[in-house]
Amino acid sequence: MLATVLYGPRDVRCEDIADPKILQPTDAIIELAATCICGSDLWPYRGLQPMDEPMHMGHEYCGTVVEVGSDVRTVRPGQFVVGSFCISDNTCPHCRFGFQSSCVQREFMSGAQAPYARVPLADGTLVATAEAPSADSVPDLLAASDVFGTGWYAADAAGVREGSTVVVIGDGAVGLMGVLSAKEMGAERIIAMSRHESRQKLAREFGATDIVCERGEEGIARVKDLTEGIGADAVLECVGTMESFAQTLDCARPGGTIGYVGVPHGVTFDGQQLFFGQKRMLGGPAPVRRFLPDLMDRVLQGRIKPSKSSTLSCR
Amino acid sequence: MLATVLYGPRDVRCEDIADPKILQPTDAIIELAATCICGSDLWPYRGLQPMDEPMHMGHEYCGTVVEVGSDVRTVRPGQFVVGSFCISDNTCPHCRFGFQSSCVQREFMSGAQAPYARVPLADGTLVATAEAPSADSVPDLLAASDVFGTGWYAADAAGVREGSTVVVIGDGAVGLMGVLSAKEMGAERIIAMSRHESRQKLAREFGATDIVCERGEEGIARVKDLTEGIGADAVLECVGTMESFAQTLDCARPGGTIGYVGVPHGVTFDGQQLFFGQKRMLGGPAPVRRFLPDLMDRVLQGRIKPSKSSTLSCR
Repeated sequence: MLATVLYGPRDVRCEDIADPKILQPTDAIIELAATCICGSDLWPYRGLQPMDEPMHMGHEYCGTVVEVGSDVRTVRPGQFVVGSFCISDNTCPHCRFGFQSSCVQREFMSGAQAPYARVPLADGTLVATAEAPSADSVPDLLAASDVFGTGWYAADAAGVREGSTVVVIGDGAVGLMGVLSAKEMGAERIIAMSRHESRQKLAREFGATDIVCERGEEGIARVKDLTEGIGADAVLECVGTMESFAQTLDCARPGGTIGYVGVPHGVTFDGQQLFFGQKRMLGGPAPVRRFLPDLMDRVLQGRIKPSKSSTLSCR
Repeated sequence: MLATVLYGPRDVRCEDIADPKILQPTDAIIELAATCICGSDLWPYRGLQPMDEPMHMGHEYCGTVVEVGSDVRTVRPGQFVVGSFCISDNTCPHCRFGFQSSCVQREFMSGAQAPYARVPLADGTLVATAEAPSADSVPDLLAASDVFGTGWYAADAAGVREGSTVVVIGDGAVGLMGVLSAKEMGAERIIAMSRHESRQKLAREFGATDIVCERGEEGIARVKDLTEGIGADAVLECVGTMESFAQTLDCARPGGTIGYVGVPHGVTFDGQQLFFGQKRMLGGPAPVRRFLPDLMDRVLQGRIKPSKSSTLSCR
């Protein structure tokens, strides 16, 4: 089969490789209905993340099960499934605590930019739909696999609830998913920080009530203005730079909560600044598996179209 | 009146100074029933915190109101009161959100190591008892003013609840109060990290179920052993050094929560380490005023004797 392999910075090849096989009795092989490029693929692609050997690309995925190992119990050939980008057993103490992205058996998915892929720990990683989804909903189910699940986690980690005032830092796909998630969780006010017109438009469509174009000190001042000088109850950090974190910390009210999902690059925090800032913080790779059944339901009920945030490549 | 004044490192003088007076209509003057030295007094005393001018010492206090300004409504002369070390109006948005230690009118109390003291924003800062407390309970009420309130906040910020597994880092007075608070909140397992025999004894008395003497990697390994490799649901950081924070982060399970109340000295955090560690964190100066009525009740009901953790100096 043909699959994408990254050999080095800006060197992606579409190569003929062997079809995936069941290696462990807990594996499943799926035929992909759709896959995509994630923002995090761009780090190694741009040479900003070292790599030791050629890398099979693709960690967002959904499709039809074609084969399962002898220990797989919860999915069977013919079912349509969505999986998390984090492979998890969903039974270890960290999984049961809701942090499948810290599973004791965690692996990161790869190789999904191909017709077929092997999914380890299929029982713990995959969620099946009741019936085959419409073609129209496939891109939205795909989004649940990572980008939507990550935006949802940002909002969940930031404690967004009915009536919250929320700021979303970052207007990439994850930030836009953070806006959508905050809206679904009942946020009353959603301030999206965005300088790109097309993304501002999507942010509004997903539920943003206010757009702030300014960044840095000016951006913080605008958020303070919009919140009567108080700051936001919840701030979603969806970038991962020192500048975006500085903005995040200052946009949250004392006692407010920060959910951070942008992988920090070159970010350090000063202990006293965090201490006196008095913000609640939770971040990390999203435990998408925790949210997956709920997110898939929301998509299949037709409530939301998260795929609007991405440029998708479907078979 | 005679009061303590810090002039510089290891230079505390007991000086004759003017009695405090009402300066603002929101002030109260109290006659102190007890006061004490706080761990945080030791930073400037040891020359580890710069000071511009002589400092009136004492920020933990309780006593009897002798005079109030014309705007004071909730306390009156003759009442016994306890106040937080953070002066707050208790009406601003940050106070109403439960973070009185970030009040827009915040001041830090000083001058309580004296027979009389002025308390600004008396309505927002002081809590009166229904009747004069017994002499026996005065030291415990005094503890609620800061050290006990701070330990309580550490446990509250760390999300301690019925059945939690808790680690307390630091066996000073605040750490011991963290143990007591976790016990009061229903923690099932409380692991106190302590190397001092007298503190280990007190920790056990306050509710610690396990003592870990080891520090650093060995200490973390012991905690992992005691928690079946999982780590703790909640970790209370009551020291404030780089070493103690490193220990704190590694003792908490993924998705676990850290409450940190030791003022960080020379502490920085690496963004990626926090991200992949996936720990919830909240710290800062304790919003004691939020907890004060509850803590005073627990003392006055005779449930607890927090003052056992301190060496107190009563009039």
